[in-house]
Amino acid sequence: MQALGRQIVVEYYDCNPDILNDAALIQGAMHDAAVACGARVVQEVFHLFKPHGVSGVVVIAESHLAIHTWPEYGYAAVDLFTCGEEIDPEIAFEHLRRALEAGNFYMMELKRGILEVAQGQKLPYKPVQMAL
Amino acid sequence: MQALGRQIVVEYYDCNPDILNDAALIQGAMHDAAVACGARVVQEVFHLFKPHGVSGVVVIAESHLAIHTWPEYGYAAVDLFTCGEEIDPEIAFEHLRRALEAGNFYMMELKRGILEVAQGQKLPYKPVQMAL
Repeated sequence: MQALGRQIVVEYYDCNPDILNDAALIQGAMHDAAVACGARVVQEVFHLFKPHGVSGVVVIAESHLAIHTWPEYGYAAVDLFTCGEEIDPEIAFEHLRRALEAGNFYMMELKRGILEVAQGQKLPYKPVQMAL
Repeated sequence: MQALGRQIVVEYYDCNPDILNDAALIQGAMHDAAVACGARVVQEVFHLFKPHGVSGVVVIAESHLAIHTWPEYGYAAVDLFTCGEEIDPEIAFEHLRRALEAGNFYMMELKRGILEVAQGQKLPYKPVQMAL
């Protein structure tokens, strides 16, 4: 059995609330996290909500990184979904931990797309060239 | 203890590969899934990859829905992350199961942003008004 992707689900607690409510800072941190872990950025969408909170996604050729922040609780929900062996989502996790000034966190890793492969074979990962 | 959000992580197997490789169909199915479950769509980004596969995210006021497809394996990885009691991500799950013609699936639900609240109090969920 092999998996097509890895998804690191992170709960960042005790973050800096001012950072969590700054859409530009959050977008920059997510972009830099994607680049740091070796991902190729395809598109970024970030939105600031009233009265507070930022939601954003960095679509990468190797899947996506997503964040939702609750400054009022110092909390951010982050998903780091990557494919391929050249990308290390733990680097993105560590980058964001520092960028959000998270005092605590909880993380778990999910294997996505677990498939059976023949003995000795490797599962090719999602192609990363844009079709359009 | 109460949670700010629910995230349904779905592995759809044995899907129709033609549907999985059609970016317009996938975007339509994801959009309709968001609307069906009561979410407010903020922005949609979808990309077709070479030689096959679609990645896309529907940012909703209540968090996001994401999909990555591998037509060559008949497989789609889906995340349905919602906040608030008025949204039911299971409706989105069921809508997508039919739209992708999934023969099998695996799903799990994560509670995101688990916080302590005082007895008798309710955790207010993420505000849903756009600031920009």
